[in-house]
Amino acid sequence: MRAVDLIRKKRDSGELSREEIEFLVSGYTRGDIPDYQMAAWLMAVWIRGMNRSELVALTEVMLYSGQVLTHADIPGKKVDKHSTGGVGDKTSLILAPIVAAGGLTVPMISGRGLGHTGGTLDKLEAIPGFNVNLSLEEFRHVLRECGMALIGQTAEIAPADKKIYALRDVTSTVENIGLICASIMSKKLAEGIDALVLDVKTGSGAFMKKEEESVRLAEVMVETGKRMGKKVVALITGMDEPLGRMAGHSNEVFESVEVLKGRGPADLRDLSLDLSAWMFFLGERTESVEEGRRLAETMVATGQALEKFREGIRLQGGDERVVDAPERLPQARFRAEVVSSVSGYITATNCEQFGTALAMLGGGREKKEDKIDHAVGLEFHKRIGDSVEKGEKLVTIYYNNDVKLAEAKTLIAGSYVSGQSAPSEKRVLIRSIIGA
Amino acid sequence: MRAVDLIRKKRDSGELSREEIEFLVSGYTRGDIPDYQMAAWLMAVWIRGMNRSELVALTEVMLYSGQVLTHADIPGKKVDKHSTGGVGDKTSLILAPIVAAGGLTVPMISGRGLGHTGGTLDKLEAIPGFNVNLSLEEFRHVLRECGMALIGQTAEIAPADKKIYALRDVTSTVENIGLICASIMSKKLAEGIDALVLDVKTGSGAFMKKEEESVRLAEVMVETGKRMGKKVVALITGMDEPLGRMAGHSNEVFESVEVLKGRGPADLRDLSLDLSAWMFFLGERTESVEEGRRLAETMVATGQALEKFREGIRLQGGDERVVDAPERLPQARFRAEVVSSVSGYITATNCEQFGTALAMLGGGREKKEDKIDHAVGLEFHKRIGDSVEKGEKLVTIYYNNDVKLAEAKTLIAGSYVSGQSAPSEKRVLIRSIIGA
Repeated sequence: MRAVDLIRKKRDSGELSREEIEFLVSGYTRGDIPDYQMAAWLMAVWIRGMNRSELVALTEVMLYSGQVLTHADIPGKKVDKHSTGGVGDKTSLILAPIVAAGGLTVPMISGRGLGHTGGTLDKLEAIPGFNVNLSLEEFRHVLRECGMALIGQTAEIAPADKKIYALRDVTSTVENIGLICASIMSKKLAEGIDALVLDVKTGSGAFMKKEEESVRLAEVMVETGKRMGKKVVALITGMDEPLGRMAGHSNEVFESVEVLKGRGPADLRDLSLDLSAWMFFLGERTESVEEGRRLAETMVATGQALEKFREGIRLQGGDERVVDAPERLPQARFRAEVVSSVSGYITATNCEQFGTALAMLGGGREKKEDKIDHAVGLEFHKRIGDSVEKGEKLVTIYYNNDVKLAEAKTLIAGSYVSGQSAPSEKRVLIRSIIGA
Repeated sequence: MRAVDLIRKKRDSGELSREEIEFLVSGYTRGDIPDYQMAAWLMAVWIRGMNRSELVALTEVMLYSGQVLTHADIPGKKVDKHSTGGVGDKTSLILAPIVAAGGLTVPMISGRGLGHTGGTLDKLEAIPGFNVNLSLEEFRHVLRECGMALIGQTAEIAPADKKIYALRDVTSTVENIGLICASIMSKKLAEGIDALVLDVKTGSGAFMKKEEESVRLAEVMVETGKRMGKKVVALITGMDEPLGRMAGHSNEVFESVEVLKGRGPADLRDLSLDLSAWMFFLGERTESVEEGRRLAETMVATGQALEKFREGIRLQGGDERVVDAPERLPQARFRAEVVSSVSGYITATNCEQFGTALAMLGGGREKKEDKIDHAVGLEFHKRIGDSVEKGEKLVTIYYNNDVKLAEAKTLIAGSYVSGQSAPSEKRVLIRSIIGA
C-alpha cells in the first residue's frame, strides 16, 4: 500500500477501506508518512468528503491511536457532554457536578479556547491552583473519589488527532463535518464513556452559522457514536447571542456557581439542567429525560451539586473558597460601559464579535501560544427581544489593559442589531434533538 | 498575506490574484512556505482548477523563479518543440538538426523518461560520451556554434517548477491540465525562444488517453504561450501505437539517423518533417507551413540535417561515428520474439504496455533514481491495420537480463488487439492543429 495511491483515490472521489485509512493515519502518527502527504489527503477529504463507513473507520483509527480508558473499577455508567463551542458557554462547569452528585461518573477531557470561543480548561484555570494537567493515574484517582474530573488531552489520548488537528489548522482543512466529527468523537470515546450528550451550537456565535449545517454535523456525530456502540444524543441549541450574562473566565466561573446555587440567568440554568437530564437518562440513572430533569433540579436545590463542585475543585488542587468568595477569582482593575446609541428593541446580535472583542482584550487566544488574562470579561445587560433606551447600558467590559479597548468597544457596539419593534417570533434555545 | 488564507480561497473555488500566486510560489521556492501548505494548495488547485489568468500568472511566476535565457548574440529566431510524451517518440533527435540546418536556432531543454514514456536526454546518452549536463555557458557556446543544443534542466532554470514537480509526484497532483501546462511552459519559455511547436499526444500510449483531454491541454498551453507573447501552435497527434518501429534508447538513436538519411518508417518521417515545417513557419524562416515542409525535406535529401546532427554530437562530447556505425551504440546481448497467437488483423494496441514492458526490462525508469540500460529495446513488426498470421513475429525484444522477461513478453503479447477484419477507418497521425 502506498500513501500516494490512497491520496489519488480520495482525490478521485473514491471510498477508502478501513485498512487504507488505518495505513494512512497510523503511518502519519508514527511519522512514516510525511506532513505533505497527509496535507494533500486532508484537502482531498475536505473537498470530496467521506461516507459514513469511512468516517467511522477514521474515528476508530484515531481513537485507537492512543489509550482508550476503561473505568472498570468504578461502578455505574460513565457519561459526558461535548459542546461545539460558543460565547459564554459554561455548562460543563455546572452539569459535571450536577451529574456526579446524581450518581453517575463524568470523566471529562476538555479543550482550550481558540478564536472567538472559550474553553473549559481555561475557565477552570481562573480558579487559583486548579490543575487541569493531571496524569491519567491522577485523573482516575479524582474520578474514583468524587465521580467527576476535568482535564486536558494527555499525550496518551488520541495522539493521531493531536497531530492531525495541528496540521489541519495550518492547511485550511478545519471546517469539515467529517474531520470535525472524527476529531471530537475520537477524543470523547477515549474517555471510556458509555453515553455522550452533544450540544451542537448554531447561529452567529457558533462555528456552524446555519442550522442545517449544525444538524448535519450532529447527525454524523450521533451516527458515528452509535455505530461504535455508544448511546449518543445531540441537542441543537441556539448561539445567536451569548449564553447567560457573562463571558470571560473569572466571571463565567462566578456565573456557574450562581446557577449551582439556584440563581443565575434562566437560559443558562435551563440548558444546564436539560443537558444534565439527558446525561441522567442516557446513563440509565433515570427512566426518562423528565425524571432526569427533576433529579438535576433536586441536586441543585439541595446544594449537593455545589458541594460536589467544591470537592472537585479541592481534589484538583484548586481554591474551593472561590465558591463563596468570588473576589478570590482574578479581578480586572477597570470597567467600561458600552451603551445603546438608539432606542428600540434588540433584534439580533453578531455574537461571534463578542468573543473576538473578548480575545482582543486578552480574554481569549488568537494563536495557540497566547496567554489568557482570566480577569477580563464581558457582562451582557440586554438579550434579543429586550427593549432598550438610548444611553442605556448594553455591556460592561472588565479589563486590565486599554491598548485595544477602543477597537473592542466598537466591535461590541456594532454587534447589536436593533429595530423599532421586538422580533415577532421568539426562538427557543433548544431547536431540535437528534438521535433520541 | 498568509498561506493558510490563500489555501482556503482556492479550496472554496476562489480566484487567486497574481500577487497571491507569487506570494505562494516564491515563498515555497525560497523555503518560507513549508511542503505541507504547498501540498494542500496543490490538491485544492487539482480539484478546483485555475482560470486562464491564474494559469498565466502561475506560469510566469514559475518562469521568473529562475533565469530566463536570452540569446541576443545569436541572430535569427529561436524555436523549439515539446512533446507530452509517448512510446517511440524520438522526433526531437530528428527535427533539431533539420531545423538548425535550415537556419533557425534550437535551444532545447529536455527531460528524462518516467513511467512508460521515454525521454530525449536518456536517448542522447545512448551515444557514447554525449554530455547533456552542460552549464548555461557551454549551452550557449554549442548553440552559437551549430544552432542546436540539447540539455537537461539546470538549477538556474525554473527552480520553482523543479521543487513543485517533485512535490506533485508524491502527493498525487500530477495529472492536472493547469499544473502540467505551467510546468511545461515555464521551462520551455525559460529557454529564450520566440516560437514553440507543441506535440500533444493522444491515445493509449499517451498520458492523456482521450482526445478531448489532449485538445484541452493543447488549448491551455497555446493560450498561455500566446498571452506571454510567443508564437505557439499545438499538433494533436495519435499515440495509439508506437511511433516508428523502434522503442528503447540505442535503437531510437539508430532509427532517428535512418530518418535523417532519408529512410526509416513513414509515420516517424512524416511527423518529424511536419513538426519541422511548423517550426520553420513559426520561426519566420518560410512564408508557409508547406514551404517549411519542402525546406525540411531538402535538409534531409541534401544530407545537411545529418551533417548537423554529427556536428551537434561532436560539440556535446559524443561519438559522432555512431551515425555510420550504429554498432558503436550499446548493444543488447539477447533477442527474443513475441509472435501472434492468432491470424487476423491488428485493430488496436494498448500502447502504454509496450513502454511499461520496456521499463521492466531496464529500458526505462519506475522511480527517478533508477538507472537505464540503453541497449534494451523493442522492435515492432506490425502496425494497426496490418494483417498477421498465427506464429508471425509481432515484436523483437532486445535485452540483457531475463529476470522479468516472461512478464514483459506477456505484457507485450497482451497489448495487441486483433480482429477478423481490418479497422474500417484509417485514422491519420495528425488529428488536429490548435492555435494555427
